Amino acid sequence: MPNHTKKISSAIITIGDEILLGQTINTNLSYLASQLALLGAPVVYNITVRDRTEEIMAALDFCVNRFDVVISTGGLGPTADDITKASIASFFGVGQSHHEDIWQKVQARFAARGIQVPLINRNQALVPDGFTALPNDEGTAPGLFYRHNKGCFFALAGVPVEMRHVFERQITPTLKREYPQLESLIQKTVHSFGISESALAEDLDLADLPAELTFAWLPQTGRVDLRLSGYDLKLLDEWQKRVAAQISDYVWGFDEDSPASVLAALLKERGLTMSAAESCTGGLIMKMLSDEPGASDYLLGGVVSYSNEIKKQVLGVSGETLEKHGAVSEECAFEMLDGIKRLTKSDVAVSVTGIAGPSGGSDFKPVGTVYIGFSYLSASWVRRFLLTGNRQLIRHKAAEMAILHMIKRIKETQ
Amino acid sequence: MPNHTKKISSAIITIGDEILLGQTINTNLSYLASQLALLGAPVVYNITVRDRTEEIMAALDFCVNRFDVVISTGGLGPTADDITKASIASFFGVGQSHHEDIWQKVQARFAARGIQVPLINRNQALVPDGFTALPNDEGTAPGLFYRHNKGCFFALAGVPVEMRHVFERQITPTLKREYPQLESLIQKTVHSFGISESALAEDLDLADLPAELTFAWLPQTGRVDLRLSGYDLKLLDEWQKRVAAQISDYVWGFDEDSPASVLAALLKERGLTMSAAESCTGGLIMKMLSDEPGASDYLLGGVVSYSNEIKKQVLGVSGETLEKHGAVSEECAFEMLDGIKRLTKSDVAVSVTGIAGPSGGSDFKPVGTVYIGFSYLSASWVRRFLLTGNRQLIRHKAAEMAILHMIKRIKETQ
Repeated sequence: MPNHTKKISSAIITIGDEILLGQTINTNLSYLASQLALLGAPVVYNITVRDRTEEIMAALDFCVNRFDVVISTGGLGPTADDITKASIASFFGVGQSHHEDIWQKVQARFAARGIQVPLINRNQALVPDGFTALPNDEGTAPGLFYRHNKGCFFALAGVPVEMRHVFERQITPTLKREYPQLESLIQKTVHSFGISESALAEDLDLADLPAELTFAWLPQTGRVDLRLSGYDLKLLDEWQKRVAAQISDYVWGFDEDSPASVLAALLKERGLTMSAAESCTGGLIMKMLSDEPGASDYLLGGVVSYSNEIKKQVLGVSGETLEKHGAVSEECAFEMLDGIKRLTKSDVAVSVTGIAGPSGGSDFKPVGTVYIGFSYLSASWVRRFLLTGNRQLIRHKAAEMAILHMIKRIKETQ
Repeated sequence: MPNHTKKISSAIITIGDEILLGQTINTNLSYLASQLALLGAPVVYNITVRDRTEEIMAALDFCVNRFDVVISTGGLGPTADDITKASIASFFGVGQSHHEDIWQKVQARFAARGIQVPLINRNQALVPDGFTALPNDEGTAPGLFYRHNKGCFFALAGVPVEMRHVFERQITPTLKREYPQLESLIQKTVHSFGISESALAEDLDLADLPAELTFAWLPQTGRVDLRLSGYDLKLLDEWQKRVAAQISDYVWGFDEDSPASVLAALLKERGLTMSAAESCTGGLIMKMLSDEPGASDYLLGGVVSYSNEIKKQVLGVSGETLEKHGAVSEECAFEMLDGIKRLTKSDVAVSVTGIAGPSGGSDFKPVGTVYIGFSYLSASWVRRFLLTGNRQLIRHKAAEMAILHMIKRIKETQ
């Protein structure tokens, strides 16, 4: 019988040669670990083994005897190296039976794609006796659930989209039912930028923070996230507001927000359109903004003016500016901004010109020098940044900085 | 004594709460696993435990008694939760001694940054007796090496850049010295596109493939990689050429090539410039091409014409075309191509217009319908594609398809 009073701990058994050959990164572990931590059944152990019956059974033996909840991922497919199900049945000392309803579902899945189902897939309809099959709408391998005398065992397919689907739809409710004492950990995040972690720490007064809440600094590339964790939603909401109010000048979003999603929402809310003139970011800002579904509501488009010729001929940057100040200059950023506004007539515009490296830097303008221009209605600004990191990172930070500064300018301008 | 004849197998012990809380993805495992597979000492087991002495010692006990090479990662820093070193010393039953040379190096590292070294860092200079400290030029925690009576044990810091540095510089040569029988596995890849895995399998005659080579199909999003593995470089080179020759119409690159790096090299080699007119990909093609250092040699830039207004006013697509055929049409792709060539005068141009979803599809033009136009000197083509997946995937496939087709067209045109 699962215990109904004490703290619950979980273990994950990862099954698959591809993980131990380094061909696949075990993102399933980090997904399950974060979900189980939030549910209140934290993962305290993980074993990764090859697709070998004796290794799978040894891992089961170790975990099932020590942890309340054990979840295996991988090896539930129909091919020869998928031996997880047979190993599990052997370990728990049960047979396997054909479940016609699962077989019908597998056949329907193939039929929908106009494919004759290969007979090897009949495997998928075998369920160890005494186990519950957990429906998988994203693939052909159902998950498995077994309540044994020391706790709960689950088996999941290794394909991330299927694994997540079955965990969310089937395992989460099952665990809440089996362990009514589980308390879900809640996390609330405040996203800041434009200030260092240590400067934030000076501004922020956390002396009154109740002991039942945990506070964490999570530095990101070029910005800092502040995370509160606990079990009391009302208290968390209150403290999320208190933290945000103390550093309001630097806050750009909350919880699941991304810079692009916040800018997108702000533009939609105010009925504004935007455009971009990108040099060193090479289209990354527009790519980020068009990642959001419905981007055509606000993103008109823009110009990637990688070469000076395009800056001149498409955006109308003057040859004199390029000669006198160079393409990476405040003057050029302003003229790029003017050019893109003239071409697109957008309400909001952004321009970026800089040196992403690895070469092209000088003493005056080292690699990482980036000019970002913003325009909102009739006002325009250009700011110089010195960003650190490799080419990839400098481009990413420049794009994110541009988006975050647009959010700030638009909000300030009401 | 390490054995000098039989096959070598390795185990990795991952130490750290952050992995089991899902805050960090265990990329160290996939790095070490792929490196050790190449070295000929494949990883067959991985345990992940929390920062707790008894759990670390239990994992050591299990692995050191079963595997030739055991490597731990994590917990070598100076703070209170870094208890790996003490746990290791306890497990092997040895004391720890201060190494003045390490302490000097730690102090110099802080001095270089103008920081007074916190005394807690004296920890870093403690080495378990009988262990060899492995220099770490990327951080303050040296790696550790111990030759025990059943094999070799190594401990590495968890920070990926430090872990990789010490593995490459110190562990790789140590393993080659300790196990002279190790044979490095070599991998050779042929990248294909425009043909399915099953159609490739029909075209490809592998009947003569020597038993000492392994062949693997690695389907990627929208393309297939073919990988040969073995120990004989000459034989691998020969078979890589033979495989490529059999499917030459579909080959776009080899080994570490990416679509953008191949196109970049081809443009540079021929002294060609390029530009792009992107609608649904929103700048992604230009972003990919400017990921490469030195992109200004070939990438002039282009236009992201997300809205119809930009298509008309910047690229000169006719209002009639948009009304009659819509923005997602062969006609529009051709006019976008004409427009970007006129604006930029580039030698090579590409245009993309499509429906990335999740909404906006119809019976005639479902989500995933993408028109890609290519132009090389005076010739132009437009092709219609029906791409599958979510918004993100459709955009990625469309950008990659556009790049791969440009490579093909340029090569064909000599």
